[in-house]
Amino acid sequence: MRIENDNQAMELALQWAARSMFITAPNPRVGCVIVKDGYVIGAGNTQPPGQAHAEVQAMKDAASRGHDVRGATVYVTLEPCSHFGRTPPCADALVKAGVAKVVMAAGDPNPLVGGQGRAKLEAAGIEVVSGVLEAEAREMNIGFMKRMQHGLPWVRMKAAASLDGRTALHNGVSQWITSPPARDDGHWWRARACAILTGIGTVQEDNPQLTVRAVDTPRQPRRIVVDSRLQISHDARILEGGGTWIVTAVANAEKEARLRDLGAEIILLPNSAGKVDLPALIKELGARQINELHVEAGFKLNGSLIREGCVDELLLYLAPSLIGDACGLFDLPTLESLDGRKALAFHEIKQIGPDLRILARFT
Amino acid sequence: MRIENDNQAMELALQWAARSMFITAPNPRVGCVIVKDGYVIGAGNTQPPGQAHAEVQAMKDAASRGHDVRGATVYVTLEPCSHFGRTPPCADALVKAGVAKVVMAAGDPNPLVGGQGRAKLEAAGIEVVSGVLEAEAREMNIGFMKRMQHGLPWVRMKAAASLDGRTALHNGVSQWITSPPARDDGHWWRARACAILTGIGTVQEDNPQLTVRAVDTPRQPRRIVVDSRLQISHDARILEGGGTWIVTAVANAEKEARLRDLGAEIILLPNSAGKVDLPALIKELGARQINELHVEAGFKLNGSLIREGCVDELLLYLAPSLIGDACGLFDLPTLESLDGRKALAFHEIKQIGPDLRILARFT
Repeated sequence: MRIENDNQAMELALQWAARSMFITAPNPRVGCVIVKDGYVIGAGNTQPPGQAHAEVQAMKDAASRGHDVRGATVYVTLEPCSHFGRTPPCADALVKAGVAKVVMAAGDPNPLVGGQGRAKLEAAGIEVVSGVLEAEAREMNIGFMKRMQHGLPWVRMKAAASLDGRTALHNGVSQWITSPPARDDGHWWRARACAILTGIGTVQEDNPQLTVRAVDTPRQPRRIVVDSRLQISHDARILEGGGTWIVTAVANAEKEARLRDLGAEIILLPNSAGKVDLPALIKELGARQINELHVEAGFKLNGSLIREGCVDELLLYLAPSLIGDACGLFDLPTLESLDGRKALAFHEIKQIGPDLRILARFT
Repeated sequence: MRIENDNQAMELALQWAARSMFITAPNPRVGCVIVKDGYVIGAGNTQPPGQAHAEVQAMKDAASRGHDVRGATVYVTLEPCSHFGRTPPCADALVKAGVAKVVMAAGDPNPLVGGQGRAKLEAAGIEVVSGVLEAEAREMNIGFMKRMQHGLPWVRMKAAASLDGRTALHNGVSQWITSPPARDDGHWWRARACAILTGIGTVQEDNPQLTVRAVDTPRQPRRIVVDSRLQISHDARILEGGGTWIVTAVANAEKEARLRDLGAEIILLPNSAGKVDLPALIKELGARQINELHVEAGFKLNGSLIREGCVDELLLYLAPSLIGDACGLFDLPTLESLDGRKALAFHEIKQIGPDLRILARFT
């Protein structure tokens, strides 16, 4: 395939970036294609932390095919890094390789290093173009972008309901309102998240593992339970495999010791009402390098997170059914005026099997 | 524009049929284009009842432009009629005009006359092809098709809710959950219906006119109020202009006389519980030549109509907002098992301004 323009090459680079969807956290997903004489001579995507970035992968790919990248144009979905982290700077590698031009989609959102990669390239006489398919590239790293700019994760709340907004019968029955394709799709969103958060209510009622099973991933997201009174049972499935974070509002040395024995970590974050301080938790998760936080909780915790302004986006699956008098989506207070409603904007609507998937963002 | 194939010509004919959207009831919306030597020489659409059908309009159009339709191909979205109704049969007119070929989208759904138009054309030596864009043509006349086949109207229930399925605050505030573009769009659906049905609750709470105002139409749909105990006030705005049908479960000569003075008609249809017999009402509306019935009612009547299996389709506008503890969409009973849910299938999803419009059909 001949590359006719920048958008076409960047589209390919974004497809390469998508291959990094599940593996690069806390680093961003980046894709790179190298074009020479109108043809792609190398392509690559960021590898897991500590391994090669997209630009280096693409140069390796070109070399392994016998191509010379000197004079080539490099399309990369994020500004090449300029600093020594776990790997050497990509900007230096591009300069050393003698490429002629770098086209990037988005600049590095990190206020401390943004623009430095570009400056390094330009100082070496490389032509740099920025902003090609920038919105798409930013979407792909929405959590990384938010964390770099605000120190906070992108919080995506997943919920599933009937068309009349019901999630469970009053007797507790909720399996399954949505279809197998929608539930599998939900696992894709779990897999791309750095962490999955739920509440003690869901743990006690449904006893979920909260692992990714329906899609292949080499990395399981961190699991987090909001458990204000440290009520979690030691045989809860969410503790299996270890590494679970339990966020609580009460210290209890004995319980904590037993949970630590199961590989869990206890995070004490009480607010003045004796519950977990949710905004403080979100901030803490940003500090712990969580880019995308996937929330799968129940009526109450969902409502609290929304009320306290902790949620960026709803990932809502609507089944084409009516359930009637049953449990609603979010525990939100009774309003006296519509001015008090929580406003969102639809971002993307897609049919998944027989169900509808709605991405809507709080405004 | 040169016509390259049957689909292209039928697509044009469907666009002509769409011009009849608001005007032909109880007749179907039909469009016709006449093609000769690869070019459209005439086009037309069905006029209001008693006036010309699409085929005759298209032939007149061709004649007025100096074209000779002899030997031409006629594309029509519904099988030409074969019987004398308020107008002479179109099949006879096509035979007389000497056209060579008729391509139709859908056959006449009327079991008494379906196929007769085609037979008449074929008997005269005209080549007939059927089934080109048939699904689209059937959609355009979904109410007429249902009435011809089952004697019943197509019942479309319109509702508007927040993303969490709430239609009004507990204090009654419901204006406005959706946006002006969504509300205007709702008037387009009113305009295409033969009748708009609501309940006494909505009349008492909102006092709506239930007329079409946001789109231009030469014809206002019939208005119908379900009012089991004949409680409607004489100054209800839905009575303005006359012609409103009041469906009740109790006879009350005095009240009825006063309502008749206001131009209303009383329809007595009680069930054994002393309420309006809703399935009988739907049947009665079919007998009264209602093709599409547009329901804009409240929580209770909506729920009753759904429970009693009277609804074919939901036209649901979802606003991107969360309202929380408030009134739900449909008064449906508490279930013990998800087997009892009402199943639908999504038919069409579209963004209207900031809102989502969902068409879903009961299965």
